[in-house]
Amino acid sequence: MTDINLNHIAIVVDDLDAALGFWRGSLGLPQAGAVETVPDEAVDIAILSLGDAHIELIQPTTADSGVAKFLANRGPGLHHVCLEVPDLDAKLAELQKSGCELINESPRERDGRRYAFIHPDSTGGVLLELYEKLPAEPGG
Amino acid sequence: MTDINLNHIAIVVDDLDAALGFWRGSLGLPQAGAVETVPDEAVDIAILSLGDAHIELIQPTTADSGVAKFLANRGPGLHHVCLEVPDLDAKLAELQKSGCELINESPRERDGRRYAFIHPDSTGGVLLELYEKLPAEPGG
Repeated sequence: MTDINLNHIAIVVDDLDAALGFWRGSLGLPQAGAVETVPDEAVDIAILSLGDAHIELIQPTTADSGVAKFLANRGPGLHHVCLEVPDLDAKLAELQKSGCELINESPRERDGRRYAFIHPDSTGGVLLELYEKLPAEPGG
Repeated sequence: MTDINLNHIAIVVDDLDAALGFWRGSLGLPQAGAVETVPDEAVDIAILSLGDAHIELIQPTTADSGVAKFLANRGPGLHHVCLEVPDLDAKLAELQKSGCELINESPRERDGRRYAFIHPDSTGGVLLELYEKLPAEPGG
C-alpha cells in the first residue's frame, strides 16, 4: 500500500444529460450536488460518488476551450485520471528528476487543493492529474 | 453511498516496461505480482495497487487481437474502467431495460469472477466493465 489514492476519473461528454442518464439513472451512482458551471474552464460538471472517489462528467459550454477541442478531436471518453498524493511538490520533483513530462511544473491552486497535470506521453497515454488537499482555513 | 466501487482502470500501452517505469518507478505505485501473460487474450498485464483498486497496464503480444487493434487505431491510453457490483445479473437486466447497449448480455466467467462489458456509446465514451466476485470455492 502507498498513500496514493484515486480521487476521480474525468470523462468528457457531448451530452451531460444523456451521460447522467447512464451513470446516475441506469447504473445508480449517487450524484454529489447539482451540475456546476465553471466559467473559467467553460464547462458544466456533474459529480457522481464512486466509493471514496468520484466520477466527473464534463461537458464543454463553448467551442474553443481546451476541453471542447479535446472532445472535437477525440470524441467523448476519458479526459483524465486524478490521484491524490500527500506531498505534491515532492512528487513533482521526483517525476521531473526521472524525466517525466510535466504540464504544470509548479502546482496550480484552487478550491482548497493544489494540483498539476502530467503529460500522457509519460504515463502510457493517460492525462494524469496529481493533487494534494490543502489544510482547511482556520474557521473555514 | 452505493455498493458500487472501482475495481480497476485498464490502460493499453505499446511498451509495458516504459509504462511500468512511470507508474511503479516514477510515481511509486506498488506492483501486485509479476507481469502476467494471458495467452487467451494475447496480452501481457502488469497490475499496480491503487488503494483498494488497481491499475492494469496491458500490452498486446500479437498484432491481431482486439486490444492490439484498439492500440493501433487509438494509440495508447485508457482501455476500460471496471466497477464491482454486488449483483451483476440484476444490474445487467436493469441496464438492458433502460436501453443500454451491452457488449455481453450474459456475463462471462473467469478466475473467480463474473463480468460483462457495456458499450461506450451508452456511457459517454468509456468502455465499462462490470464485475461481481464469485464466492470462494469450498476449500479454495
